[in-house]
Amino acid sequence: MKAERITPIPFFRVSVNDLFWSPRINTNRMVTVPLGYEQCRKTGRLDAWKLDWKDGDPCRPHIFWDSDVAKWMEASACSLYLHPDNKLKENLNGVINSMEEAQQPDGYLNSYFTAVEPANRWTNLRDRHELYCAGHLIEAAVTHFSVTGDDKFINIIIRYADCIDSVFGNGEGQKRGYPGHEELELALVKLFRATGESRYLALAAFFLNQRGTRPHYYDLESAFRGEDPAENYEYWQAHLPLREQTEAVGHAVRAMYLYSGMADVAVETDDTELAEACRLLWRNVTGKRMYITGGIGSTERGESFTADYDLPNETAYAETCAAIGLVFWAHRMLHIDSAPTAKYADVMERSLYNCVLSGVSLDGSRFFYTNPLEVRPGHAIIQSGPENNYRCSRQEWFNCSCCPTNIMRILSSFGQYIYSSGNDSIYVHLYVGSTAEIDISGIRVKIRQDTEYPWKETVTLSIEPEEPVEFSLSLRIPGWCENASLELNGKEIRQLQISNGYSHMRRMWKEDDTLKLILPMPVRKIEANPEVRDNCGKTAIMRGPIVYCLEEEDNGPNLNDIGLDSSAELKAEYDGNLLGGCTVIKGTASIRKESGWADHLYRPGITEAMQVKIKAIPYCLWNNRRPGGMLVWISENISN
Amino acid sequence: MKAERITPIPFFRVSVNDLFWSPRINTNRMVTVPLGYEQCRKTGRLDAWKLDWKDGDPCRPHIFWDSDVAKWMEASACSLYLHPDNKLKENLNGVINSMEEAQQPDGYLNSYFTAVEPANRWTNLRDRHELYCAGHLIEAAVTHFSVTGDDKFINIIIRYADCIDSVFGNGEGQKRGYPGHEELELALVKLFRATGESRYLALAAFFLNQRGTRPHYYDLESAFRGEDPAENYEYWQAHLPLREQTEAVGHAVRAMYLYSGMADVAVETDDTELAEACRLLWRNVTGKRMYITGGIGSTERGESFTADYDLPNETAYAETCAAIGLVFWAHRMLHIDSAPTAKYADVMERSLYNCVLSGVSLDGSRFFYTNPLEVRPGHAIIQSGPENNYRCSRQEWFNCSCCPTNIMRILSSFGQYIYSSGNDSIYVHLYVGSTAEIDISGIRVKIRQDTEYPWKETVTLSIEPEEPVEFSLSLRIPGWCENASLELNGKEIRQLQISNGYSHMRRMWKEDDTLKLILPMPVRKIEANPEVRDNCGKTAIMRGPIVYCLEEEDNGPNLNDIGLDSSAELKAEYDGNLLGGCTVIKGTASIRKESGWADHLYRPGITEAMQVKIKAIPYCLWNNRRPGGMLVWISENISN
Repeated sequence: MKAERITPIPFFRVSVNDLFWSPRINTNRMVTVPLGYEQCRKTGRLDAWKLDWKDGDPCRPHIFWDSDVAKWMEASACSLYLHPDNKLKENLNGVINSMEEAQQPDGYLNSYFTAVEPANRWTNLRDRHELYCAGHLIEAAVTHFSVTGDDKFINIIIRYADCIDSVFGNGEGQKRGYPGHEELELALVKLFRATGESRYLALAAFFLNQRGTRPHYYDLESAFRGEDPAENYEYWQAHLPLREQTEAVGHAVRAMYLYSGMADVAVETDDTELAEACRLLWRNVTGKRMYITGGIGSTERGESFTADYDLPNETAYAETCAAIGLVFWAHRMLHIDSAPTAKYADVMERSLYNCVLSGVSLDGSRFFYTNPLEVRPGHAIIQSGPENNYRCSRQEWFNCSCCPTNIMRILSSFGQYIYSSGNDSIYVHLYVGSTAEIDISGIRVKIRQDTEYPWKETVTLSIEPEEPVEFSLSLRIPGWCENASLELNGKEIRQLQISNGYSHMRRMWKEDDTLKLILPMPVRKIEANPEVRDNCGKTAIMRGPIVYCLEEEDNGPNLNDIGLDSSAELKAEYDGNLLGGCTVIKGTASIRKESGWADHLYRPGITEAMQVKIKAIPYCLWNNRRPGGMLVWISENISN
Repeated sequence: MKAERITPIPFFRVSVNDLFWSPRINTNRMVTVPLGYEQCRKTGRLDAWKLDWKDGDPCRPHIFWDSDVAKWMEASACSLYLHPDNKLKENLNGVINSMEEAQQPDGYLNSYFTAVEPANRWTNLRDRHELYCAGHLIEAAVTHFSVTGDDKFINIIIRYADCIDSVFGNGEGQKRGYPGHEELELALVKLFRATGESRYLALAAFFLNQRGTRPHYYDLESAFRGEDPAENYEYWQAHLPLREQTEAVGHAVRAMYLYSGMADVAVETDDTELAEACRLLWRNVTGKRMYITGGIGSTERGESFTADYDLPNETAYAETCAAIGLVFWAHRMLHIDSAPTAKYADVMERSLYNCVLSGVSLDGSRFFYTNPLEVRPGHAIIQSGPENNYRCSRQEWFNCSCCPTNIMRILSSFGQYIYSSGNDSIYVHLYVGSTAEIDISGIRVKIRQDTEYPWKETVTLSIEPEEPVEFSLSLRIPGWCENASLELNGKEIRQLQISNGYSHMRRMWKEDDTLKLILPMPVRKIEANPEVRDNCGKTAIMRGPIVYCLEEEDNGPNLNDIGLDSSAELKAEYDGNLLGGCTVIKGTASIRKESGWADHLYRPGITEAMQVKIKAIPYCLWNNRRPGGMLVWISENISN
């Protein structure tokens, strides 16, 4: 029997009103989403849907442009729900109309292949992003339907999904292939959930089960094209059947979307084997291959995972999309068991507050594709061509612009990560000023958080059921937090009932019940596992969920030469005027005195150090002032 | 008037009998040079001279194969001088014969272009290594003539040089181009010195003066081929006229050969401007872009220099050939002024004892192409394909096998770097057990060194003139050395007359004069300029000219987690059984206790450290036992 599982409260049932997040969500709606439309228009991504591109025309459609448009559509649908906007609605409907016109008689819907390579449909699943684009279209349509109730877009997309379902499968004459860039799997589960049509779930499961089997579909496919096979399939996570995979390999974004789809299918089909594969992969990613910022993917080469504990800071790739993908996956892992385990929410929080937000400027107009943990502009040429600049300052757009549109999606639907509920349980995963309306045994329960998290330690939760109702309220005690305390209606609860990282309280809740959760936030010096060679002898500063960094603007250019003293105190201080208001960390450290180095590179002895004041700012806010260096892992002088 | 300059004593006038170098030179002669022939034979490099390769045949000749063969020939000629070897002589003469047969009626001599692309001679100087191969052939022929007196090879090569001289120049119908891979410039100066023919010197100067002028020859040339121009010319050091270049850019080996040629032409033509450009470039390379090992070229991308102070350890390229090229250049800079300055010999010594020697295994059979300062095998995938293995252990050969043949050359002609002389002066640059015969005012002076340098501090120099003769004897006081002292015939010289880093003694030298030079060799902890971000908080260990490293074999796998304590003593200890006999450095350091990290990557606080014993070995000897990690720059705990 399928165990009762808790499910997330969707973003459109949660109203966010938060000191930290609301300005970012509003900026996303007012600046970033409109900018996304403009960029898609300017670059030809919208016109591509006219299908009238001819050889020699400018703006040749690209194999993954549809995914950018789809992600913008998904973000726009969410934005429209948050705030009416006629212009945006009109733009969105315009794109839906052009898709309707572009759809082929059999339901096929891809601007690139229809206009540029009609003969080559489904001939190169490995490299050509056809099924990936389909996945994003499905996600957009499901979201659009959920928030607008308008079924025009989803009906177009259902026709396309049915087209795909007819082409792929184990039936006679059907292709046994699967996406080269995973994404469709999780999208099909969304479509299944939205429509109740089990064929979509079955197709998602088919794609997962085919992956990595022998003979290798990509080999058959490349032989058919008269091309050499790939050298190995780690890049696509297709080197082994999924149930045999235990290490996160290859392209990090692909991996995150895949693992998310695996978790979805595991939940919907009660596939314990698939769930176990997810758990093993989770253990590998978060225990051995994840930056402290929640970034993943250590190298530019293939935008990929590398080896256990290989987490170089300066050359970190840590693509914004991969951190966002990690949030997607973590959110699903939170719901893979019958009850959530806080470690998944810890990682979700880590990525959201650090590597995800660093992907976009405070003003919403510029983006990081990669999120290194150490930067010294002009000092090194470690990347080829423009990539090097991308690491030192945010850019307006990219040729491969997956990250900006992913930022748009996640910020406009942010509310979905905060709460979950079951038959008689409510879970609070994130501490964000917000109100959610949750149905418990047919009774509407309003739950409201007031907090200045992550800057302040207190979260006030008001529980307002329509009428008194018994249920279990579970509050996540963050993994980073020691000595959390909780008051119910002004009285401290002596013994918190904590399991799986949540404090559980079952009672008859009634109007005006108020909880005060205190999450002490001392400044924490973090050390990395000694196996992480790049962080040996170094310390990172955290407070609450926030990872801090030193910026050149505050600390001069030679950030690497700053040494924290194990005895020196670091103090948190809120600065309302800095970067939209944030808590900074101040303290003293040491740095070598400049003395007569001139043209010398090396010399004996150790130059005398002097004390300097340092100021660390949240990593997610770096590169919002003048361009300059940045450093997360700081040298630590350990006094024995 | 041309000032009297001192000149190097060639290797064939120096007999090396040294504890440190002789085993390496002998192994080079007995193992490496024969292996070079065998590899050239096996890979088709020798057969290429038959010019009978046809499309579809295996072993298609390659554009730079001739350079490998030429460098092997040069090494062989030197080896034959050091020790007769009929087999080697026969092999060498065989190659000379096949070159004679391969030479075209107009003197042209290139196995690739003659057999594979006869129509494309001189059409792509930028990329096709034609003039580079010519340079190596000339070097080989000049050396062969110098040590054998046999003029067959040099006469072949003179015909080729004349052919080149007729094609290139400012005359009507002549090409205004210059080598894409520099090398020919320095070779032409050697040919000029060997033959007295000033046309060769003029041609070298022509190539140098043309370099980087506008309109850009490489642009004209690529337009003629119907190809796009290159994006920039830094890679080839052709972005600016040489006299305007002040920063070392682009491909490091190219740069070293170029700067060597510049120094040669500056000396021979009294070109003070060119000499000044050399000095500025020297300042940039050795003051801002050189590893402590004397390695240069920070990145695999283009095997190139990057930016000032950008000296990453793990991803260091530091090609063996580039370190050898730095020795060539340093040796020339030592002779660019009327009197030598020791800083040039300091760098020459730094490269020779560290990055050059690390290029070859103790047994002479395996080679490093790149010489990183930090390695952790299996832990990171930072390089593409096989390159990654190349960094972790020496290889038998390479497709691009420039480094092994350069090792062969420099070891077989090592004696040339030790002494120089002028009309009435003798300079000792390196402390190596050896005997040299030097002509001073027509009187033969034998100078002999007995020493166990670099392991021991004492060098005994015996001066044996045929008859008493007055001259100035100048001994380099190494830049790394403090408190050097000198005894003459058993009596300490109170006040050393030191200028430009040499201790000068002018006197009437007579038979049995003996000097005892004591160069104190305490273990030195070296810090890097604070601008070198990768070495902040780190220390390197040196003793004398030797850079030390930690190897996994002696210190366990987590080398990066080892922290030196500023107060802990490091002791030198000679171990006659280790790696052919060497001085190791021993001491205590701290390392974090393993404690319950399990699947955790990050946690607050600082794990308690425990004391461990460490043992450092000379960097040049690493990777001669079991494969494993290696580290030069070690974390330093600074007690304030």
